[in-house]
Amino acid sequence: MMEGREKIEKNRKRRGRQSVAYAEPVYINASASVAGKKEGEGPLAGGIDMTGEDDLFGCGTWEEAESSLQKDAVYLAMGKAGVDSRQIQYLFAGDLLGQSIATSFGVMNYGIPLFGLYGACSTCGESLSLASMAIDGGFADTVVCVTSSHFASAEKEFRNPLEYGSQRPLSATWTVTGSGAFVLGKEKGEKARAKITGITTGRIVDYGLKDSLNMGCCMAPAACDVICQNLLDFGRQPSDYDRIITGDLGSVGQRALIDLAAERGYDISVNAWDCGMHIYDPAAQDTHAGGSGCACAAVTLSAYILKQLEEKKWKRVLFVPTGALLSKTSFNEGKTVPGIAHGVVLESV
Amino acid sequence: MMEGREKIEKNRKRRGRQSVAYAEPVYINASASVAGKKEGEGPLAGGIDMTGEDDLFGCGTWEEAESSLQKDAVYLAMGKAGVDSRQIQYLFAGDLLGQSIATSFGVMNYGIPLFGLYGACSTCGESLSLASMAIDGGFADTVVCVTSSHFASAEKEFRNPLEYGSQRPLSATWTVTGSGAFVLGKEKGEKARAKITGITTGRIVDYGLKDSLNMGCCMAPAACDVICQNLLDFGRQPSDYDRIITGDLGSVGQRALIDLAAERGYDISVNAWDCGMHIYDPAAQDTHAGGSGCACAAVTLSAYILKQLEEKKWKRVLFVPTGALLSKTSFNEGKTVPGIAHGVVLESV
Repeated sequence: MMEGREKIEKNRKRRGRQSVAYAEPVYINASASVAGKKEGEGPLAGGIDMTGEDDLFGCGTWEEAESSLQKDAVYLAMGKAGVDSRQIQYLFAGDLLGQSIATSFGVMNYGIPLFGLYGACSTCGESLSLASMAIDGGFADTVVCVTSSHFASAEKEFRNPLEYGSQRPLSATWTVTGSGAFVLGKEKGEKARAKITGITTGRIVDYGLKDSLNMGCCMAPAACDVICQNLLDFGRQPSDYDRIITGDLGSVGQRALIDLAAERGYDISVNAWDCGMHIYDPAAQDTHAGGSGCACAAVTLSAYILKQLEEKKWKRVLFVPTGALLSKTSFNEGKTVPGIAHGVVLESV
Repeated sequence: MMEGREKIEKNRKRRGRQSVAYAEPVYINASASVAGKKEGEGPLAGGIDMTGEDDLFGCGTWEEAESSLQKDAVYLAMGKAGVDSRQIQYLFAGDLLGQSIATSFGVMNYGIPLFGLYGACSTCGESLSLASMAIDGGFADTVVCVTSSHFASAEKEFRNPLEYGSQRPLSATWTVTGSGAFVLGKEKGEKARAKITGITTGRIVDYGLKDSLNMGCCMAPAACDVICQNLLDFGRQPSDYDRIITGDLGSVGQRALIDLAAERGYDISVNAWDCGMHIYDPAAQDTHAGGSGCACAAVTLSAYILKQLEEKKWKRVLFVPTGALLSKTSFNEGKTVPGIAHGVVLESV
């Protein structure tokens, strides 16, 4: 019944204030992504495992549809890794909805010990950070991370019912309908996609912006903060990463990020890359500034980024999902929209 | 700039599927609680560090008031521990509001790397679990956990505006206005209050109940699951704990828990103890079934439970904050109210 664990001897180093470098990497042994019709018609179509014919996925409500996305992504990822839910020690999961109900109703039937997370659209980075710590710390051999978002449930949660037909400014992004799940392991799996070699945990940064339809600029300061801290803590230059990948700044927020990083002395204009700017085709699928949502970074990581690392087109990237910390209540009460971002160093295996 | 860390050699044991036993305990070196007027007039008054004269705490909205509770609790706890925010490596924090805005606006000015959590009213247990793992795993020396709830912001979030004057059935609980913060350390502080020697991480359990005004019974199955798993994993009997302390089942939910545990072969009728049944005076402050909310377990832990451990009245307790995973959307869509609970083993130092 009780399983002893070997003594752990590590050369792990804590770096600077906000970062941890893993001497023994943590492996992303499998991943899966499930997405909506629009995402399935976009540039990442080839890498997405399953797309719906409509965005209800056979469910009665948008929220149930989002739950089914998480359930399916976890199921597919476990299948690819060749593990079942009894072999998963922890699930690190979250979404954008109030009280994280997409997660609760999505993953509950797996019966896996659950750590529910909320970091807005940065949650994918937060989940990979805590999950890799749990493995490196010796608390688990195999864990799963999953995050989701859904265009229609998010519009209802944060803005207006779809029926209102809201107009959107050019700085607005489009919430990605989808979910990405990742099976992380202490041991390198046969089909390991990449390894996590370090993390830089973000702080909340608030530049006082209040425009919830320009979330890219609200989040750019937090992304800049965590990227610069990562470079400082690891003693690296931007060129040490093939790409510095933000989650969902979109085209407007990315320009802000590049300018802010330049002010801090880092030129990231060459290798800055934003998931929100690659998940939709700007010409054929005009979404204004790009994609956003917890699923934006998660689906792009599973469907595209890990592929580049597998094929060694990229050797090392800094993956930085970005989150805007607002709710409809905070917005209606006139509060600012602070940002947070979590950095994860991913390398080819 | 870069600080090397010593090699870590541990005898940590993973126990069973859901539990971890720490060979070297993690210390709760300081704690603080801040609460509302009603809580300040209740049985725990003597142990609460600060109470408000009204429940707005000088703020303009209930949500801001809840944020100020978190800010003050963290400030007081850091002060007692003799540390400032630059010495805190991670903050593990959460609340009940949609998109955890009480946390975002409460802790942002501290600039501490943040892991936002959501486990409904179990979040205090989730935060102590992840925080103790971060320390035991060697990722941090000092971290802070904080959670909050507020009666008025919760009523607005989950039920109706206060002005509607809703009637409450006898199974209903009263959301605690307050916040509890805990400074955890790798090293035993001079005024260490208790030590964490193990954790049992909960799974979502859903018995199909839909009554959001009887959350105690919705959560009891999850509490039972994690308590029985803890006893099994650690090879203990209920009598090995001076108290088995649930977060906010209230009097109705606690009866369900005792019955459910009996069906599993454990008699916990003697040492079951519920924070929600002790934070208000049932005679003078009728709240029906008791108190609830993220702050119920957190304030009671800081103001009362740790005191019993300090004074060695209790030597070892199993602390099990309990959460009901619902939102107003899931309720309105006719979904069930699943539960989750996280167990933390606390011992006298």
